[in-house]
Amino acid sequence: MLKIVINGCNGKMGHVLTETAEKDPGVAVIAGIDKNIERFRNKFPVYENINEFEGNADVILDFSRPEALKSLTEYAANTKTPLVIATTGLKEEHKQYIQEAARHVPVFLSANMSLGVMVLKEIVKKAASVLGDDFDIEIVDFHHNQKVDAPSGTALMLADTINCQLKGGKRFVYGRSPESGKREKEEITIHALRGGTACGEHRIIFAGHDEIVEIKHTALSKSIFAIGALKAAKFIVQQEKGLYTMDDLANH
Amino acid sequence: MLKIVINGCNGKMGHVLTETAEKDPGVAVIAGIDKNIERFRNKFPVYENINEFEGNADVILDFSRPEALKSLTEYAANTKTPLVIATTGLKEEHKQYIQEAARHVPVFLSANMSLGVMVLKEIVKKAASVLGDDFDIEIVDFHHNQKVDAPSGTALMLADTINCQLKGGKRFVYGRSPESGKREKEEITIHALRGGTACGEHRIIFAGHDEIVEIKHTALSKSIFAIGALKAAKFIVQQEKGLYTMDDLANH
Amino acid sequence: MLKIVINGCNGKMGHVLTETAEKDPGVAVIAGIDKNIERFRNKFPVYENINEFEGNADVILDFSRPEALKSLTEYAANTKTPLVIATTGLKEEHKQYIQEAARHVPVFLSANMSLGVMVLKEIVKKAASVLGDDFDIEIVDFHHNQKVDAPSGTALMLADTINCQLKGGKRFVYGRSPESGKREKEEITIHALRGGTACGEHRIIFAGHDEIVEIKHTALSKSIFAIGALKAAKFIVQQEKGLYTMDDLANH
Amino acid sequence: MLKIVINGCNGKMGHVLTETAEKDPGVAVIAGIDKNIERFRNKFPVYENINEFEGNADVILDFSRPEALKSLTEYAANTKTPLVIATTGLKEEHKQYIQEAARHVPVFLSANMSLGVMVLKEIVKKAASVLGDDFDIEIVDFHHNQKVDAPSGTALMLADTINCQLKGGKRFVYGRSPESGKREKEEITIHALRGGTACGEHRIIFAGHDEIVEIKHTALSKSIFAIGALKAAKFIVQQEKGLYTMDDLANH
Repeated sequence: MLKIVINGCNGKMGHVLTETAEKDPGVAVIAGIDKNIERFRNKFPVYENINEFEGNADVILDFSRPEALKSLTEYAANTKTPLVIATTGLKEEHKQYIQEAARHVPVFLSANMSLGVMVLKEIVKKAASVLGDDFDIEIVDFHHNQKVDAPSGTALMLADTINCQLKGGKRFVYGRSPESGKREKEEITIHALRGGTACGEHRIIFAGHDEIVEIKHTALSKSIFAIGALKAAKFIVQQEKGLYTMDDLANH
Repeated sequence: MLKIVINGCNGKMGHVLTETAEKDPGVAVIAGIDKNIERFRNKFPVYENINEFEGNADVILDFSRPEALKSLTEYAANTKTPLVIATTGLKEEHKQYIQEAARHVPVFLSANMSLGVMVLKEIVKKAASVLGDDFDIEIVDFHHNQKVDAPSGTALMLADTINCQLKGGKRFVYGRSPESGKREKEEITIHALRGGTACGEHRIIFAGHDEIVEIKHTALSKSIFAIGALKAAKFIVQQEKGLYTMDDLANH
Repeated sequence: MLKIVINGCNGKMGHVLTETAEKDPGVAVIAGIDKNIERFRNKFPVYENINEFEGNADVILDFSRPEALKSLTEYAANTKTPLVIATTGLKEEHKQYIQEAARHVPVFLSANMSLGVMVLKEIVKKAASVLGDDFDIEIVDFHHNQKVDAPSGTALMLADTINCQLKGGKRFVYGRSPESGKREKEEITIHALRGGTACGEHRIIFAGHDEIVEIKHTALSKSIFAIGALKAAKFIVQQEKGLYTMDDLANH
Repeated sequence: MLKIVINGCNGKMGHVLTETAEKDPGVAVIAGIDKNIERFRNKFPVYENINEFEGNADVILDFSRPEALKSLTEYAANTKTPLVIATTGLKEEHKQYIQEAARHVPVFLSANMSLGVMVLKEIVKKAASVLGDDFDIEIVDFHHNQKVDAPSGTALMLADTINCQLKGGKRFVYGRSPESGKREKEEITIHALRGGTACGEHRIIFAGHDEIVEIKHTALSKSIFAIGALKAAKFIVQQEKGLYTMDDLANH
């Protein structure tokens, strides 16, 4: 039985992960970390800061904000606790914290934990390798109106995946305005739609001469991310120190 | 038989309009205006500037660039020639030229001449009147990679149509970038996708709590705009001076 | 406080309705009817048959199977209990039971209780009145793989709505096979897609010469139907005997 | 310069192929075959039957009806003329004619000649290999209202491609009607939408637990099929006798 700590346990994804973990006989949530400790009645102890936690976790699952990453990665490195990071909106500094931690413990990092997105990434890679240099590529992500980062971490991950398949990498453009002028061949444009309560949709459009190939993933509930995160947790505890992604999980 | 002059006759839409007019026994193209006069073999005389044209047209159809509007509207006002304007990407100054001309001759102005978009506008109006204050509204236009203006004139026209139905008007936001932050209730976000050779697609998304209503128009060829423009031409020659739109054509 | 009985309380929609009702201070579930009484721990008494229930309900909400309608409508008529029916897959005989009951009590009948679908119906009506005679109409419903009826009740309701707007009614065709031959002008074709756990999506396609108008509704959770059903319940208890639909609720 | 004969030269695709061939300096249309010889003014001689043609073609391109295949394949075999077949709606007998011909000459057979569909097939294969056994698969093709066969040949080709990736092959179901009952796990359902003048759209839907992966191809004009067919013609004339498909062209 895997003892897990949920960082961001009282956010939306934290609650979904708690519910999913309760149904999984292979894991037990032994603590949560959240700035919000008053409002909710969690079935496990909740601390404001990871450093207040004095138990021993097998793995920490992080679905919170980038700001929490500094102390979290330091804690993981110091205590040798493996880490699964699903937080998005990472800047350069956050990526450095993660890489530093990965020198001491196994760290799993993915902006999207679902099986469907893993497949999406594979087929986008395939399509980009054949069409990417001739067709124009646009990415559209559609999420609920409370999402803070735009575009989504998954959209950026897909754009990176595409770029790796192209002879010359393209630059990322975020949306298009009256000042944009004509589209340039050397761009991948990423559009972030926000509205209502939609869980998350990603479309990758390859538009060529008189034909269009489009690949789309729709998440109908957040539970797919929780299921994937638990799968990643079970995987990461068996690895050596280092940085792991969905590709490693897919090919293992 | 209506004698027409095509402004922008050697652009893409100019050629489609020429072809469509040839098949219509009710109209005859007697001249074209275009900066590009060498490359093409038009079946009618082509001039670089409207002022070089010395004949008498019943109506001028304009599918060109906003820069041409100053001399075109002056010519129309001076010679009392009715005008159909389908050019998009208009700025404030261009709208003023058009309104000035409309004090002297009948002028028809529409960013989109198709029957389908006319219907789209009507149903978007209906949806906005019921859902517009509670649901988040996002507009997506998708056009070929040579289109200069973003968003499309039709997308802006639809956004205006929606705004007229709302208690408090919303502000237009063009795309969303890492700097955008969380969506605000008081915005209509317009996303301009560009790629390949697509003729034109417009989606209006009303995203609410756990449900989404989406309305979409797809143009499969430019001929629908040419057919609509000729319909507008036949309509405008029978009107008094003034500014007319698709609404007037729809309700006449 | 409205005392309600839920017919089909242990089906999927019954559970969603129970949860939604619990959060609504204006209603109280006093009993449930379901063939499945062992497996679930409901917070209210559950009976296998409506006739075993000896209390007094203000209104019965029915989200079950057509087979239950005979005894349910008889009970409602005999006890003068208003009825909200959301069950789909009705055959001619079931419609007759409902109409018979409506001679004695107020009965609300709708295959889809959501606000979005109410709007969808309105705009489909508008589009059909302008485009319906010239454009080809195809309807696509997409639901989870456990749904028994095909097409959905909502799809049929939308097809009926369209037909009422056309000069000559069109006949409904269900899917298309190698034996179908060429499409006939006088048909509305309805396609029922089934797969995964999708809550429900309806698309109405108007396909004309070189342009397509498409109207789509997506339900992201079943709670929108429960919220609508409670709204209908509060409405129906204030009406005289007779048969009522979403149109009555919309215009009241 | 490749001397080609077009079978079905006066059908829609025949005309598009003629236009495309005229722009290609590497090919020359030396004759056409069509039952319709009066109405059109072709720039090359047209015969009602391939046996009336007395010249020597390097390759015959067939965009006609399955009924023409018997005499066409016999002619090809007897005269050792390579054959490119794009005709759809083939029955068992037609496939046998083709295989018989392939014993004597090189024959290229594909229901869809576009580059985009070739890529579509590849990525559908990939998706099916990972998701195919757990996710429900539905295919939707959307074509103009004059198309005779339903579903499209491309849809069937994609369904075959998927089936080859599954542990147990699934059976094909065409549409779904009130008599269909609940979806079975062991089916791939294919829906044929028809309306307006749409060139052709294919969607493959993989619907799983709370997530959906969708892959779509849209043809904006028939010219992509003509360009692909000429590419196939240039390929097939360099092959030995045998039956070839897009896979051979892709991997050569």
